[in-house]
Amino acid sequence: MTDGNTTPADLSLNQKTLNNSSLPEVVDECLTAGVPAVGLWREPVHEVGVREAARLVKSAGLRVSSLCRGGFLTADTPERRREAIAENRRALEEAAELEAPCLVLVVGGLPEGSKDLAAARRGVAEALAELAPLAEHYGVRLALEPLHPMYCADRAVLSTLDQALELAEPFPVEQVGVVVDTFHVWWDPRLFEQIERAGSRIASYQVCDWLTPLPADVLLGRGMMGDGHIDFAPIDTAVRRTGYSGDVEVEIFNEDVWSRPAREVVETTVDRYRRLVHPR
Amino acid sequence: MTDGNTTPADLSLNQKTLNNSSLPEVVDECLTAGVPAVGLWREPVHEVGVREAARLVKSAGLRVSSLCRGGFLTADTPERRREAIAENRRALEEAAELEAPCLVLVVGGLPEGSKDLAAARRGVAEALAELAPLAEHYGVRLALEPLHPMYCADRAVLSTLDQALELAEPFPVEQVGVVVDTFHVWWDPRLFEQIERAGSRIASYQVCDWLTPLPADVLLGRGMMGDGHIDFAPIDTAVRRTGYSGDVEVEIFNEDVWSRPAREVVETTVDRYRRLVHPR
Repeated sequence: MTDGNTTPADLSLNQKTLNNSSLPEVVDECLTAGVPAVGLWREPVHEVGVREAARLVKSAGLRVSSLCRGGFLTADTPERRREAIAENRRALEEAAELEAPCLVLVVGGLPEGSKDLAAARRGVAEALAELAPLAEHYGVRLALEPLHPMYCADRAVLSTLDQALELAEPFPVEQVGVVVDTFHVWWDPRLFEQIERAGSRIASYQVCDWLTPLPADVLLGRGMMGDGHIDFAPIDTAVRRTGYSGDVEVEIFNEDVWSRPAREVVETTVDRYRRLVHPR
Repeated sequence: MTDGNTTPADLSLNQKTLNNSSLPEVVDECLTAGVPAVGLWREPVHEVGVREAARLVKSAGLRVSSLCRGGFLTADTPERRREAIAENRRALEEAAELEAPCLVLVVGGLPEGSKDLAAARRGVAEALAELAPLAEHYGVRLALEPLHPMYCADRAVLSTLDQALELAEPFPVEQVGVVVDTFHVWWDPRLFEQIERAGSRIASYQVCDWLTPLPADVLLGRGMMGDGHIDFAPIDTAVRRTGYSGDVEVEIFNEDVWSRPAREVVETTVDRYRRLVHPR
């Protein structure tokens, strides 16, 4: 708690925000601060084991807001595609065991040596057709995450909310949704109309700030809200106007944040969330 | 000349590609290689003087494909806006003296301390209304350049071709056009439909490649065609299909390229252009 107010009831702390903490430590910090939900990543979950992670989170009374991540669906050989589908099936199974409502999909960049962006994008659509029934089976929604266009070559050929919605719309809304992550979409001149279009397709909503200058490792430019250039409140209002009632996940990748004590980071997160993301 | 073939008749060497060469040296390299056009920047032009630069280029028989750059139109005080308009008027005057068909506009990022992206974008539209009659007066077209979304905060709130066309379309086509720069737009899922929509609005067409990993200074990620991830030929075909008949400017910002001998860089440029950008 901060300023004597209660911690927001829809705030979720993505465990990557406390990158140097184990899952039990992250759970403890959530309990201490009154944060009611947590976003999980597969690798640190595997470190404690999926069953133990599920038990830990559940016994602490925390919700799991999402599991990161599936995806990497742009492989250009049949064998690698089969491997990717199998890996995503395992991720869905883990998400189900963790009672995560969605599995975040980072779709993958251009295959090694390929410059065929259109083909890579078609590959994602084809893989999605295989994954959607699995999502139904496991009761976990696939959450297509548009990544910032600067990651198009090497991480995600899915670059805008518009494009994510085109991919999602052929499937039932409970099988395939999209992620609105402020870092990735804040620049988009059509952001607000695409959020409105997304409506009930928003499966996950993540916040963090855009810092300048970008750090040398551009994966680590995800800053604490208020430290960068994003005006959060209008985006937050637009997302809620769609009827979104899930958690708001704070996911920060940033060496400065990671070097600070976990307690301080969580307190700052709660404070910034309340002042900048969803002020009342 | 390379491989015994003539140098392409529509190739333009942007002088920034030879960043360590003076304008007279750039002109010499163009003559040696048979490159018929050159893209100029205001700062190195000022070093030799605008009149002398115009004389140099003209007496060498080179076309000027564009002048970089005007813009920086997002200032949020009346005084700074007036200064920006005055600066752009000077740039248009220089472009006219250099017989450049267009002045490339990098519109500017968020004003210092501001997070109001929508207001900054409105400011660009308002400034454009003041600049368009000046463009008419000087007989130089304003070329709105969408920059890659990773520059949205600090360099250009104009992020897509779609957005550039919305800004340009209220004005006569000879006053306001757009730039298609492969580095900035290659990732756009709507690229090909927007190029088609652009039609005669394409005032400048620039090529260079997208490298990964991005260098620590993200301004220097503009690589030699073929060294990165962009598939140029389909973009080139789409641009020409609009009827574009201007020059194709190669503009590379890259420490590796800049450290090589100018002659070698120009030869590589001609070779890569012929093999990758506009193969016949």
